[in-house]
Amino acid sequence: MGKEKIILTGDRPTGRLHIGHFVGSLRRRVELQDSGLFDKMFVFIADSQALTDNVDNPEKVRQNVIEVALDYLACGLDPAKATIFIQSQIPELCELTFYYMNLVTVSRLQRNPTVKSEIQMRNFETSIPVGFFTYPISQTADITAFRATTVPVGEDQEPMLEQAREIVRRFNYLYGETLVEPEILLPENAACLRLPGTDGKAKMSKSLGNCIYLSDEADDIQKKIMSMYTDPDHLRVQDPGKLEGNTVFTYLDAFSRPEHFELYLPDYPNLDELKAHYQRGGLGDVKVKRFLNSIMQDLLTPIRERRKEFEQDIPSIYEMLQNGCEVARAAAAETLSDVKNAMKINYFDDKDLIEEQVKRFQK
Amino acid sequence: MGKEKIILTGDRPTGRLHIGHFVGSLRRRVELQDSGLFDKMFVFIADSQALTDNVDNPEKVRQNVIEVALDYLACGLDPAKATIFIQSQIPELCELTFYYMNLVTVSRLQRNPTVKSEIQMRNFETSIPVGFFTYPISQTADITAFRATTVPVGEDQEPMLEQAREIVRRFNYLYGETLVEPEILLPENAACLRLPGTDGKAKMSKSLGNCIYLSDEADDIQKKIMSMYTDPDHLRVQDPGKLEGNTVFTYLDAFSRPEHFELYLPDYPNLDELKAHYQRGGLGDVKVKRFLNSIMQDLLTPIRERRKEFEQDIPSIYEMLQNGCEVARAAAAETLSDVKNAMKINYFDDKDLIEEQVKRFQK
Repeated sequence: MGKEKIILTGDRPTGRLHIGHFVGSLRRRVELQDSGLFDKMFVFIADSQALTDNVDNPEKVRQNVIEVALDYLACGLDPAKATIFIQSQIPELCELTFYYMNLVTVSRLQRNPTVKSEIQMRNFETSIPVGFFTYPISQTADITAFRATTVPVGEDQEPMLEQAREIVRRFNYLYGETLVEPEILLPENAACLRLPGTDGKAKMSKSLGNCIYLSDEADDIQKKIMSMYTDPDHLRVQDPGKLEGNTVFTYLDAFSRPEHFELYLPDYPNLDELKAHYQRGGLGDVKVKRFLNSIMQDLLTPIRERRKEFEQDIPSIYEMLQNGCEVARAAAAETLSDVKNAMKINYFDDKDLIEEQVKRFQK
Repeated sequence: MGKEKIILTGDRPTGRLHIGHFVGSLRRRVELQDSGLFDKMFVFIADSQALTDNVDNPEKVRQNVIEVALDYLACGLDPAKATIFIQSQIPELCELTFYYMNLVTVSRLQRNPTVKSEIQMRNFETSIPVGFFTYPISQTADITAFRATTVPVGEDQEPMLEQAREIVRRFNYLYGETLVEPEILLPENAACLRLPGTDGKAKMSKSLGNCIYLSDEADDIQKKIMSMYTDPDHLRVQDPGKLEGNTVFTYLDAFSRPEHFELYLPDYPNLDELKAHYQRGGLGDVKVKRFLNSIMQDLLTPIRERRKEFEQDIPSIYEMLQNGCEVARAAAAETLSDVKNAMKINYFDDKDLIEEQVKRFQK
């Protein structure tokens, strides 16, 4: 126990996945899956968590479960290498959450900086749903159920991992060594951490219409890129342009590689030279956007095409998910059984208990 | 649905049950069981709830599960008429709790007067375990899982029932008619609501040693009654005595019946005459205590003897509990299935979903 290296990661099914997800986690996830460095990988569609702040819109969550599954497969997640499952189909996660709730105080949750900022972001203020408020505990259940050693997330999620480790330590201290402490695996490339929307806004969101989805058609991608936010003061080609807050260059930081220059922009040996020209003036936005478009089309065309193939056989996707859920349930059930044994609420499985009680009453 | 009359009730297994439990709920519970007025009755041993504030003492909870079961049977709860089960063995309750947590806000829980006073009683102050803080939600899961229409509890629990009704209404409003609204069934006799300890203190507790347990031996009962708190100013027999706060008379209010006078104290036609004599002076504490002792021995001897019979076959008690858990699980699983259908997180059971998605992607 605890010797295997196990990854747990997932996404909330509140929309199709976009290139922010791709650079922030999906791309790396596929690398990790194929790295051979991990014994197991669990990837889950967090529908229960999505419901904590979409309580009045279960249909949205339901529709997006299949969208996220398709995006996963399109990006190269492989059910033969990673267990892909749906959170709500693993009842053991609710049981673990239920018992872990005894190990955390209300004030400890209130101090969690990630929860604080998420609450602010959602304008919950005083009307925070309890399910949302307690989601660090539910996340701990997700992580520990699969004995995950490694959780690849952004730095902003560190307080969540710290909460998980606290629960694990407290459980193990009270009931004996049972649970595995998870470690965070931070992204290697900070530029990829948070990709802005095409309008330059920090947050990509469906309602703002500022996301490039993995499933977008070629002309939609082009339209979104050609209308991207750049430097609002860069009015004429000859003017010097700014890189700060210039979305096109942020995207090039995240996506361009040397071979892209050879292929599509041989006048420039690399991104630094392109940036330098933009800054001193004489390089127009359109040229840079066309370059970014070529890169993005190269990246997204095979993903979109794979997605379309998978879309042809929707029942098999549900079947894949159902199989994943079965594997995940078996793993979670094993952990839950250990947890209930440790907490001594395993009355009917514990042969010694009955004997011990028989003796006690014979006295 | 909702037409059957179903009772739900239970106790936390944190100690053997005492006569406070008996007059407060057990006696009535047996009457309700035998009344023929209810279609079903579920009685549960709330070990999960007991763990919310006994996280560091699972052994106490574990030992007392069997004690409570024995007390139940000794008092006349009959597994042929009532389903007796253990809360932690019904995982569906955790799942329901998990989803109901989305329907309640943190501030709503904070305003619950029962939670407020329970928190105060336990000196939790700022370090309230989340599991304890959220127990009204867990109680709603217990109640609704069995479609209980009727919850026989004291008036102090009315805010808990109100919380349960709020959750039911919000769930039904959001997801369509699914859950049954429970009603409180208040005790008929206010005097029985809260029996004080033998020392006159409001709360009976093991640590204060002021409880008469249903399993106490005859001489222990006698000792406890003969040293009961009465009127500290009633020093000589001829002095007038006070009834207010006089535990012996509070107990007589709860337990004495006209036939007890005929049998043990024929000089007095009823309790009013006995009280009057005590108040005007000339009636000693010892005489009243002996009378109470006779009544209590009459009440507790058959309970204790039945308990001893059941203690002879502990394995059969566990078997009875296991059977009860199976029946309870089946009932709770049905409700959970309805809940998940209503919330549309029943992906693999829903034949229409796959067809609908196939069509969506064919467009």
